[in-house]
Amino acid sequence: MKSALVTIGDEILIGQVADTNAAWISSRLNQIGVAVGEMVTVPDDPGQITSTLDRYMGLYDLVIMTGGLGPTKDDMTKQTLAAYFDSPLVTVPGVLERITAYFNERGRRMIDSNIRQADVPQVCQVLMNNQGTAPGMWFERDGTILVSLPGVPYEMEGLMEEEVLPRIRQLVEVPGVVHRTVMTQGVPESYLAELLKDLEAGLPACVKLAYMPQPGIVRLRLTISGKCAGESEQMLEVIIGKLEKIIPQHIFGYDDVSLEKVLGELLAERGLTVATAESCTGGNVARLITSVPGSSGYYTGSVIAYQDRIKTEVLQVDEALIKRFGAVSRQVVEQMARGVRKQLGTDTAIATSGIAGPDGGSEAKPVGTIWIAVACGGRVIAKRFRFGGSRERIIAQASYTAMQLLRRLVLDHI
Amino acid sequence: MKSALVTIGDEILIGQVADTNAAWISSRLNQIGVAVGEMVTVPDDPGQITSTLDRYMGLYDLVIMTGGLGPTKDDMTKQTLAAYFDSPLVTVPGVLERITAYFNERGRRMIDSNIRQADVPQVCQVLMNNQGTAPGMWFERDGTILVSLPGVPYEMEGLMEEEVLPRIRQLVEVPGVVHRTVMTQGVPESYLAELLKDLEAGLPACVKLAYMPQPGIVRLRLTISGKCAGESEQMLEVIIGKLEKIIPQHIFGYDDVSLEKVLGELLAERGLTVATAESCTGGNVARLITSVPGSSGYYTGSVIAYQDRIKTEVLQVDEALIKRFGAVSRQVVEQMARGVRKQLGTDTAIATSGIAGPDGGSEAKPVGTIWIAVACGGRVIAKRFRFGGSRERIIAQASYTAMQLLRRLVLDHI
Repeated sequence: MKSALVTIGDEILIGQVADTNAAWISSRLNQIGVAVGEMVTVPDDPGQITSTLDRYMGLYDLVIMTGGLGPTKDDMTKQTLAAYFDSPLVTVPGVLERITAYFNERGRRMIDSNIRQADVPQVCQVLMNNQGTAPGMWFERDGTILVSLPGVPYEMEGLMEEEVLPRIRQLVEVPGVVHRTVMTQGVPESYLAELLKDLEAGLPACVKLAYMPQPGIVRLRLTISGKCAGESEQMLEVIIGKLEKIIPQHIFGYDDVSLEKVLGELLAERGLTVATAESCTGGNVARLITSVPGSSGYYTGSVIAYQDRIKTEVLQVDEALIKRFGAVSRQVVEQMARGVRKQLGTDTAIATSGIAGPDGGSEAKPVGTIWIAVACGGRVIAKRFRFGGSRERIIAQASYTAMQLLRRLVLDHI
Repeated sequence: MKSALVTIGDEILIGQVADTNAAWISSRLNQIGVAVGEMVTVPDDPGQITSTLDRYMGLYDLVIMTGGLGPTKDDMTKQTLAAYFDSPLVTVPGVLERITAYFNERGRRMIDSNIRQADVPQVCQVLMNNQGTAPGMWFERDGTILVSLPGVPYEMEGLMEEEVLPRIRQLVEVPGVVHRTVMTQGVPESYLAELLKDLEAGLPACVKLAYMPQPGIVRLRLTISGKCAGESEQMLEVIIGKLEKIIPQHIFGYDDVSLEKVLGELLAERGLTVATAESCTGGNVARLITSVPGSSGYYTGSVIAYQDRIKTEVLQVDEALIKRFGAVSRQVVEQMARGVRKQLGTDTAIATSGIAGPDGGSEAKPVGTIWIAVACGGRVIAKRFRFGGSRERIIAQASYTAMQLLRRLVLDHI
């Protein structure tokens, strides 16, 4: 089964928001073996919506369209679909009841535009929206299924999980295409490509290796398709075995698992707690660690010591060391790690101190210079890094590098 | 001038990354008056790249294509473009020099695939990439300009700023279309739509109002075009004046400014410092505040007190209060704000305590219940909120709400 995604929304075309819905939908479709052949974003414009449908209906097995179904006046997808399928808008009593209940539960008054959300083209099947008020719609014509969903991410996700994916799953036979993503930290893309050069050269034609860099992380995506289909799983095992030999210290997981989740599971498994003492990363390491549900089991707390006074007063860093070596130094970052571990009574700790920029750099310590220390058991390890790019990129790279260092220290792989 | 964007990359079609490049490019193009009529994402597949070019060349004035130019083996855009324009690949000495210098500066060895990056189709103009190794390319045919750029975000952005946008700017006459975005915090989209119902009904036909919600924030985008073009600016002033009367306490800025930046500027202007004491938000408020360059001028530090022990030991919250009212209570969050302000010696403070979920809720305090306290001068204000959605959404909503509360307290608008 081959699909295309259509996103409707001026806000995406003028660049105010990135299209995260399309990413989410294609990820879920790929998991059940439905390839996405194309994604397109068009404006809230009946003519362009119609010409896109003309192009895709009959060409793809499935077209999923998001956006343009809200109660506000800028949305016109439903009217366009009614015209496209030449089917009048009718009120669906079940939907109207649901919308009414939705408003009653929240103690909010229904307005006219909310009531009109219960109208759909007569020809479609209604998909119930349990997260909001705009129903989803399912059409079929010319061998193509067209699904229209609201653009609000959690409403779209709810409709996909509860209504759309279960139906699609029944329609598709899972083909032999297999994806696997190897998550790496600590090696830039082009250096990684060089390390893996021989491995790549030896891959059979049906295996595709793609590099997907983001700040601090490179994902290696392996796709096995075509002739190898029957042996995909075994082939993956062999290739991943080779990767684990070439870059053992850089791989932290598989299939889009996050480093914060991997680190959290490791800490939970070993019964260890963690605290962070952050300067240049400003709470980003703590935020990542606590983004994992259940992190309260191993995460105690943190001290963000942006000003030196907090480093000395709260984290008990020796003032003389800051004067002598500067706040961005091995000596200070080691004391920060020790200090936060002692103050918050944890088993392990992460500390960061550096220059995230754009200002504050010097010749000896240019923007991007970051000291990171990690502590576990009797060991405290500190390393100096030099990251490139914007303030945001530098903070992201430092945060992932810090978590990976602690992970390696806990595993005794450092 | 009308443009289309083409993103090449299997990683986007399988949903591993969202297409943030397209959002960035369209935002920059719109700023200089170039509308984006369509965005499409196609795989690293010569046939599909070619058929997309067939559709867009001649139809749009400008086509910007990103991706598929990296040194790794999965990229094939350049070969496809050479075939499409029937032009042989030739080595550009200036580019080869630059790539060589790039590698020398970083003390890295050049590999064969890096050298091949200096090859481009003979017919194109080369755009120098100062951030990386893959050059950009500029083609013209059938009245359409086609620009091909690498997909790595900071390389693409550098090429756009330094090479592409200056050339485009010379080609376009700025039309009368005006966009303005009003940033609001604290009102859900549908409630906002109701508040603005009468205003919307009275807008002239050439004015478009769009609601763009994200967790904790709703952007209101006003677009004025067509017949009103000559008076766009005056008309905007009038509409914004009305908005400021209807929702004065919810507007925090204009044109995509972030709340963290607005709050930072306010604190800097008043000479006030800030600290945060975070429980459920886990460092996210601190991260947002410190994401602003120059935040070290007003941000001192934070204590993330995930466990109650840290609340009592470091923030000096009364243990008896936690026992009596629970950690998620007015009493505790007020003491957290006072405690962190005293401990870190700041003028203002933000404190959060709540249940971000997915576990930990109860009937009295369901998931999404968050207490927020803000302190400034002699005042400490605490409010209880109930946010919906995922853990991530709840944390984001709580963080923006907390910053907005402090902003309103500092402005004495609460």
